[in-house]
Amino acid sequence: MINFTERYSDFSKWLSAIGSDPTGGMTRLLYTDEWLAAQNGLKEKFQKAGFEAKFDEVGNLFGRVEGSKYPNETILSGSHIDTVVNGGNLDGQYGIEAAFLAIQYLKEKHGQPLRSMEVVSLAEEEGSRFPYVFWGSKNIVGIAKNADVMNIQDKKETKFVDAMRKAGFDFRDEKKPMRDDIKAFIEIHIEQGNVLEMEKKQIGVVNAIVGQRRYNIILKGQANHAGTTPMGYRKDTVYGFSKICYESINKAKAVGDPLVLTFGRVEPKPNTVNVVPGYTLFTMDCRHTDKAALVAFTTEIEEDMKRIAKELGLEIEIDRWMDEDPIPMDKKLVETFEAICKRDNYNYRVMHSGAGHDSQIFAPKVPTAMLFVPSIKGISHNPAEATKLEDLAEGIKVFAEAFYELAYKD
Amino acid sequence: MINFTERYSDFSKWLSAIGSDPTGGMTRLLYTDEWLAAQNGLKEKFQKAGFEAKFDEVGNLFGRVEGSKYPNETILSGSHIDTVVNGGNLDGQYGIEAAFLAIQYLKEKHGQPLRSMEVVSLAEEEGSRFPYVFWGSKNIVGIAKNADVMNIQDKKETKFVDAMRKAGFDFRDEKKPMRDDIKAFIEIHIEQGNVLEMEKKQIGVVNAIVGQRRYNIILKGQANHAGTTPMGYRKDTVYGFSKICYESINKAKAVGDPLVLTFGRVEPKPNTVNVVPGYTLFTMDCRHTDKAALVAFTTEIEEDMKRIAKELGLEIEIDRWMDEDPIPMDKKLVETFEAICKRDNYNYRVMHSGAGHDSQIFAPKVPTAMLFVPSIKGISHNPAEATKLEDLAEGIKVFAEAFYELAYKD
Repeated sequence: MINFTERYSDFSKWLSAIGSDPTGGMTRLLYTDEWLAAQNGLKEKFQKAGFEAKFDEVGNLFGRVEGSKYPNETILSGSHIDTVVNGGNLDGQYGIEAAFLAIQYLKEKHGQPLRSMEVVSLAEEEGSRFPYVFWGSKNIVGIAKNADVMNIQDKKETKFVDAMRKAGFDFRDEKKPMRDDIKAFIEIHIEQGNVLEMEKKQIGVVNAIVGQRRYNIILKGQANHAGTTPMGYRKDTVYGFSKICYESINKAKAVGDPLVLTFGRVEPKPNTVNVVPGYTLFTMDCRHTDKAALVAFTTEIEEDMKRIAKELGLEIEIDRWMDEDPIPMDKKLVETFEAICKRDNYNYRVMHSGAGHDSQIFAPKVPTAMLFVPSIKGISHNPAEATKLEDLAEGIKVFAEAFYELAYKD
Repeated sequence: MINFTERYSDFSKWLSAIGSDPTGGMTRLLYTDEWLAAQNGLKEKFQKAGFEAKFDEVGNLFGRVEGSKYPNETILSGSHIDTVVNGGNLDGQYGIEAAFLAIQYLKEKHGQPLRSMEVVSLAEEEGSRFPYVFWGSKNIVGIAKNADVMNIQDKKETKFVDAMRKAGFDFRDEKKPMRDDIKAFIEIHIEQGNVLEMEKKQIGVVNAIVGQRRYNIILKGQANHAGTTPMGYRKDTVYGFSKICYESINKAKAVGDPLVLTFGRVEPKPNTVNVVPGYTLFTMDCRHTDKAALVAFTTEIEEDMKRIAKELGLEIEIDRWMDEDPIPMDKKLVETFEAICKRDNYNYRVMHSGAGHDSQIFAPKVPTAMLFVPSIKGISHNPAEATKLEDLAEGIKVFAEAFYELAYKD
């Protein structure tokens, strides 16, 4: 099999130029000129490679190579073309590039597949322009509702609907069922974490995408003079927060992988050196691949927080504003990916994804699985997002092997 | 002795009208029109009461009743006329009102004292207009240097020197020594804490003003994705902060009064729900009445913080930007105040001041002591700053008794 280094480099150089942000990294937001230029550019590339290329109603772009024996069984693959503001050139884009290059190579080398192969450049995943995520994949599986986005707008107060129509797209007909030819969805993505790097692995075979619960928590005590209020007369919400954070993270460490717990935002009031803080808002983000374990752990922490607040004479408000179930990947596809890695002597590991991906939208509808390649220092959503060129090329190689297994074997 | 309720109410109503802020509470900043109106108004009140009234060079206002036997032995008393922005009408002002009303009453009742009695309305204590504190008292004891304020300005970029001259004042002659007739400085102030209220005491006899050390501390770790970074691979600065805060405050509680420890400001970066915070700035404020104890405790906490940071793989920067020694009050004066409280059956306690006061500037130069009256809920520097009228009146009564002991007894 070819080494994809050169083909990837050329393709990525071309695609990364569309939406390159003068303030750093890449900014390619849904339905903007940059986004449209990228999608139209990809359409041309797909056509030049001999793929049948077309947009759906909302702007997902498909490039198809028809199967000879089972044309109505499609192996679909891709990722999202949109980015966060000042993001990198791998998150999303790499999955489209890899799917295209793999299909192109297989077509050149082995001719027409038995099953149809499709690359999809999904319209949107990040939610970085409008407050709505997975617009692309949700439309494909038929769970995006026109009503969800009818009244939303971006920071410049451009309406979603106006931006969509200006880009030349419109709502899909909600009465139409989801297409029934998709036999599998496979996606390759950068890890966006540092597990593969720390463990010196080249490939991650994803067996599940975590569920997550997110909270805003407010502690109310009493603001007091830092000099004149003895320790015993204080209702110090930063002390309350520190006890909650310290004890909860210790518990999370004891439970261990795949549980993660983060207190990412802390905002005391008045937030000044010489006042005992009478009010603190903080966030908690908890993730796990097993729903029962996620619920059990967060329930325990919620009870702990209430008990600690009571002990310290503080009021507490706990708002769980996100509650998403974990999504397992298809077992058979995971086994296929693993068998390839073993056969070809890749240094790989089976792992979960701690971040959300388009695959989680497809997984409840069609057999779905993912591959990861390492992220240098785990950095993502940042101009410094990077993966060794060698790792990117090897990822595409494994991905092409997977496509071959799924589309060329009877 | 008279009940001061009515005299205090009338006087305070008049004085509180000068600098009453339409946005809430009182705002009377150094050398502003409101400040000058208050000082000029007080000068008239002092003169009407038969006191010899005069400003010094920088704008401290004195009202003097000459002693018959020891005219060159002065019992000086007062507090500051300036306020914080949107402050209350007790912090500072009450000490001037009480001294004036006490002297006025004693003069009416007992005639000329043996020693001279003086009330002083100090120009400035709060540092709320210009970045300089205790301008009034520091000029009286001769430790304010003209050079200290030569280049400072307020938020509107008005120079200190220009504001001072516009108000009709100028620098004192630095070659002149401090006046040598002050035999004692006594000050009455609201507690600005909740100790007297919680312990149902009417009067606090202050035996020391705390020393304080203030710090800015920065923890540096690594910003990571909250979903994709296992607990074991994190360098989480909010967790580091929480361990430091939790363990340090537990230690402070174990040490107990008069030690206080506050983590008032916490600022993680990027301060968002789904990123492990790679950077956290926080403050620490520690106070104690005993210098050795303050140094020993903060040294221990500094070592703890370094150890915790090292354990967690974090970098730490510890910046101690304030280091003020505790100031003991004059033992004999404290005994005099206590004896009066005992004799007159006041429900009092000896206590320290956790906040700074003009008395700490006088104390190293002349025998100095303070009285406190309770603050409702400990609130101060706030329009809600309040003390029961009864407690304010009783405070003036005790203060007048103290003046009598010091100025009328041979």
